Amino acid sequence: MDLDDPRPEIGDAFGAALVAHHEARDTGHAWAADRDAGWYVVERDDGYTDPLPAAPYFAEPDDWQWDLERAALEACTGRVLDVGTGAGRFCLALAERGLDAVGLDPSPGAIDVSRSRGVPTLHLGTVFDLDEPGPFDTFLLMGNNVGLLESVDHAPRFLGELRRLAAPEARVLGIGLDPSATDDPRHLAYQAFNRSRGRLPGQLRLRIRFQHLATGWWDYLLVPPTELVDLVGGSGWDVVDLDHEGPLYLATLALA
Amino acid sequence: MDLDDPRPEIGDAFGAALVAHHEARDTGHAWAADRDAGWYVVERDDGYTDPLPAAPYFAEPDDWQWDLERAALEACTGRVLDVGTGAGRFCLALAERGLDAVGLDPSPGAIDVSRSRGVPTLHLGTVFDLDEPGPFDTFLLMGNNVGLLESVDHAPRFLGELRRLAAPEARVLGIGLDPSATDDPRHLAYQAFNRSRGRLPGQLRLRIRFQHLATGWWDYLLVPPTELVDLVGGSGWDVVDLDHEGPLYLATLALA
Repeated sequence: MDLDDPRPEIGDAFGAALVAHHEARDTGHAWAADRDAGWYVVERDDGYTDPLPAAPYFAEPDDWQWDLERAALEACTGRVLDVGTGAGRFCLALAERGLDAVGLDPSPGAIDVSRSRGVPTLHLGTVFDLDEPGPFDTFLLMGNNVGLLESVDHAPRFLGELRRLAAPEARVLGIGLDPSATDDPRHLAYQAFNRSRGRLPGQLRLRIRFQHLATGWWDYLLVPPTELVDLVGGSGWDVVDLDHEGPLYLATLALA
Repeated sequence: MDLDDPRPEIGDAFGAALVAHHEARDTGHAWAADRDAGWYVVERDDGYTDPLPAAPYFAEPDDWQWDLERAALEACTGRVLDVGTGAGRFCLALAERGLDAVGLDPSPGAIDVSRSRGVPTLHLGTVFDLDEPGPFDTFLLMGNNVGLLESVDHAPRFLGELRRLAAPEARVLGIGLDPSATDDPRHLAYQAFNRSRGRLPGQLRLRIRFQHLATGWWDYLLVPPTELVDLVGGSGWDVVDLDHEGPLYLATLALA
């Protein structure tokens, strides 16, 4: 530790936030409302910070913020891979509807919390680690997880892994956030900064911080729906449907 | 801006959080509950982060978290200086009770928000900047603002300024947080780190971050009530009363 040079410990900050929220719901803290437990910080590499609550990861479908997510839930068919399952809200809702859902998350804390909340099938890791025999009919990229496409280079690799795991009639249902849907000068300056360093404007470089922990830095892509169509092209998938709600969209991809 | 080396802009991060919360209450955001607007981050110099809501700065006395603060409100007499007035919750409650309260805050945003919420008398700055003619009967250090004593060196200077501004029967009412009331290994490690660099165990080095902004680093002192008595000794003030609630205490100081 060095004065004025904060060095958080590298670790599962996101999972620790989910665990903290989960435990607060179980036990009830004296000095913190359940709603407030587990807030974590998303830090962008220009120093912009965004505190976010863990509670939405635990919400029931009726309380989800976006109709697009409820629409995605209803559009699921067959065997479902929930990519970035968080606290398992989609897997639990799908199990209740009688669907076979598999939760995937690189956060050990997320896996622990999802398991203790009753998600039956979970895998620790990313789509690149997944060694599942049976194919999937639906891939879910909820909570803005179109962001997992990361970059121009990474997107086809990521989508290639989904193709590897896909049943013939498989669909990808992904929620994306359009980076052009802002007039905040700080975000616009960051997008210009990204262009200047040869990145897509909405190619965020982020880490999550919670208490003493920080994740490593990773890329997370905000991409306008029209540019998503280009980005997906050549990956073996096509964008076959787009729905919109505020700055968000729900993209449906089918095998080309 | 440089990749992986976040450099927030130095500025009034705390005031910006209060302004954001105030504006969200006024206008109602489509995508953020009022309660969630204005969360900011307290960052400690070991990299520990603590996201905190702005909402409590706007609360009415019945909704304040601590009975000790309501007790402090009832104990106010005469002309009151609210040191670190935030969004003016104490000044407004005092004005409603017919007392003459002056709000003091070094954050321009806090002053703006307090003014727009109806606090009649406000000063931008610290007790070292205050050039007020009349003396004060009560000094309020609410919201853990015993922390403004900062350090062994700073405490007598700070209390000397209050003495300069004090009426003969003046009282200081200060809420403090006892740093020994934790069993969190991260906080205990930080306290040991502080001892190793010649600081009081609870002498936090903090900054506030909000969106693109960060304040400079400053010291904020968590001190056990027994040690507060020693720290105050020789400053021209004496601790004449201590009340307790969980990890907090309300210290009453009178002129020696």
